[in-house]
Amino acid sequence: MSKVYVIGLGPGADRQMTLEAAKVLEKCQVIVGYTVYVDLIKSQYPEKLYLTTNMTQEVKRCRMALDEAAAGKAVAMVCSGDAGVYGMAGLMYELGEEYPGVMIEVVPGITSATGGAAVLGAPLMHDFAVISLSDLLTPWAQIEKRLKAAAMADFVICLYNPSSKKRRDYLKKACEYVLEYKSPDTVCGIVRNIGRDGETHRVLTLEELKDTETDMFTTVFIGNEETRQIGGKMVTPRGYQYV
Amino acid sequence: MSKVYVIGLGPGADRQMTLEAAKVLEKCQVIVGYTVYVDLIKSQYPEKLYLTTNMTQEVKRCRMALDEAAAGKAVAMVCSGDAGVYGMAGLMYELGEEYPGVMIEVVPGITSATGGAAVLGAPLMHDFAVISLSDLLTPWAQIEKRLKAAAMADFVICLYNPSSKKRRDYLKKACEYVLEYKSPDTVCGIVRNIGRDGETHRVLTLEELKDTETDMFTTVFIGNEETRQIGGKMVTPRGYQYV
Repeated sequence: MSKVYVIGLGPGADRQMTLEAAKVLEKCQVIVGYTVYVDLIKSQYPEKLYLTTNMTQEVKRCRMALDEAAAGKAVAMVCSGDAGVYGMAGLMYELGEEYPGVMIEVVPGITSATGGAAVLGAPLMHDFAVISLSDLLTPWAQIEKRLKAAAMADFVICLYNPSSKKRRDYLKKACEYVLEYKSPDTVCGIVRNIGRDGETHRVLTLEELKDTETDMFTTVFIGNEETRQIGGKMVTPRGYQYV
Repeated sequence: MSKVYVIGLGPGADRQMTLEAAKVLEKCQVIVGYTVYVDLIKSQYPEKLYLTTNMTQEVKRCRMALDEAAAGKAVAMVCSGDAGVYGMAGLMYELGEEYPGVMIEVVPGITSATGGAAVLGAPLMHDFAVISLSDLLTPWAQIEKRLKAAAMADFVICLYNPSSKKRRDYLKKACEYVLEYKSPDTVCGIVRNIGRDGETHRVLTLEELKDTETDMFTTVFIGNEETRQIGGKMVTPRGYQYV
């Protein structure tokens, strides 16, 4: 039975890759992915056949990987971060139903939530919710409902895809929903280009976040009631007593 | 300025460790951690000074790491999974306020949510909430509120610490709250000993999950309305159109 590995490369596709991901990439003949992420690993593994598609061609990209596997090749479908968090793992299983001879295995990677948290300090130490603000595949009403529920129950909130050129005001709208339940002084953080050249981060209040411009390369963190700044870091206490 | 690295070893502390975590461990002189996790890496790095404490001695353990760093040693505080998700990263920053000469750096790892998801298939493809059922440090009323909010807004829910000897019925209670909003047929999954010897997993319904016994080595996944079984895997579609 042939196999396709769905691999999360971690945020930067190099030092934050797992040992297993590196080992599996080494043994695959064909590497399939979104052009931008494939470019991050080409120099490390030059002797491979690379197949790429642009953004929004996810279905085509998955079929390319499944077709190659069905033809007997050892195939890796690569994603930035973790393939199982807003990545290609789900679609691979869905399309995989048409390829009974191909087995799918997911190799996990560091997702932006935990990779970005490490840059900011320790914002995700307590219960948290991960929400994408992209409404390409999800009705905005559903996103609004989840933002409000997460804010009401005082989850730490991690936002993926906080805005793009076509969705400039989405983060502002999201912050307005959250402000119905959380204080404007809530400690927040943003990280851009996690694990890549030009990585930047900033710790700020929810009120400041509301008027901050971000893009698709940014991950946003909104603290809970206990989250505080310690030496410029964003830290959510778990509740250990130490004084 | 001396430095202490707070390192997530991933679920199994070997092949799911990142390249960066392995590199940092290599260069540290002192490795501090909970006895069980330290035992997982001792054979890989025999030439280190190991300092361990038992469970519930988290404050002592963090101080040991900070003291060693303050004394000029290169120190790694290791955690299973990701140090920033119910791990030691937060407490290290809190206690670190008393050690102005010690810098703290978090090295992210694969947490049970993404590591377990990869075993089950692709349950976390859409917005999800991570909740710990341990009420050692969190009032149960807060846990109940978060479970109900996450269920009401149809998040995929990932549960850490679903039960222990002293908390046998916690998962059952959690499922009862969730059943107020989600169908008994909701697709769920459990994974035990992620990435370790004896790893097991099972896909089941929410109704079945309610009466399932788990332990501290188990991570639980409760799907959203769209989550389904595909070839024995638990898959939450992101919403791509492909038919």
